[in-house]
Amino acid sequence: MSPTIVAVEPTAPADAAASARALRRVADPEHGTGPQRWDDVDVHDYKVAGSAPFRGVTRQVLFERDELACQVRYFEVEPGGHSTLERHAHVHAVVVLHGLGRCLVGTSVLDLGPRDLVEVPPMTWHQFRAADDAPLGFLCIVNVERDRPQLPTGADLEALCADPTVASFVRVAD
Amino acid sequence: MSPTIVAVEPTAPADAAASARALRRVADPEHGTGPQRWDDVDVHDYKVAGSAPFRGVTRQVLFERDELACQVRYFEVEPGGHSTLERHAHVHAVVVLHGLGRCLVGTSVLDLGPRDLVEVPPMTWHQFRAADDAPLGFLCIVNVERDRPQLPTGADLEALCADPTVASFVRVAD
Repeated sequence: MSPTIVAVEPTAPADAAASARALRRVADPEHGTGPQRWDDVDVHDYKVAGSAPFRGVTRQVLFERDELACQVRYFEVEPGGHSTLERHAHVHAVVVLHGLGRCLVGTSVLDLGPRDLVEVPPMTWHQFRAADDAPLGFLCIVNVERDRPQLPTGADLEALCADPTVASFVRVAD
Repeated sequence: MSPTIVAVEPTAPADAAASARALRRVADPEHGTGPQRWDDVDVHDYKVAGSAPFRGVTRQVLFERDELACQVRYFEVEPGGHSTLERHAHVHAVVVLHGLGRCLVGTSVLDLGPRDLVEVPPMTWHQFRAADDAPLGFLCIVNVERDRPQLPTGADLEALCADPTVASFVRVAD
């Protein structure tokens, strides 16, 4: 069944501007090797430099409406870069969009590629690293109400690095 | 600075199994033209057949932890298929992952490709259609607490279809 088409002159509805703004296009539809950017989405530093160890990470907030209860961020780690080794009570839901890398979740080091899904449980040490020759870009979805990350103490690091695989993976300097 | 590596025999921590389960890999890492699937993620019907008009849509729930406050679903519309034309108070945050198509949001018909972002505001009519020769796969993130969708009445459809572009886009039968 096709919808009824009535012979009424179209008028601009009140929400025409809002519905046109509903779409934000990716700025690189060819999925090149460059950083992923979107129209009308600002690119931020991952964190304040010096506040925590990290290297070569940008942050873009894709969705942050209160009604959604969560925030959808996109992080891109440049080749050879890494996020901060940290933990917190809130969970991360991660969808890899772009590139290659690895992550630590708890005591596991996991290889990552596009479309892979990662769930970081509460109070679980985690860190994301891009490959040496490719960036790693991923969506990270979090509750809008969340606690601040904790950095590892010396004792935490010692415990983590009891596992040689973890020891060789983690980066705790910029 | 490299982390301290201490000469302690590694032991299996209590969360080893949980952290290994943190990763669910995409089942088609080559990004082929087939449907996108993930390990340990069930593929469901989009809706109960007959409950609402739609054609050729599957639903996969990628993340649904209470602590996250939202649910991350992946919908894939087969070539020529469409989701239900509907509206609701809750918002949709959409990230296209795969394929090509178009969507209606309010009074705008928008072309979609990979990485494009769509935000569906509250009580806004919307529908997603795949291209005739390509699927359309997208993440759709919603609040875990949300209202049921409303279908258009005859009067709603008449108002929508006052715009010829909308009239030619919408599908209200299976």
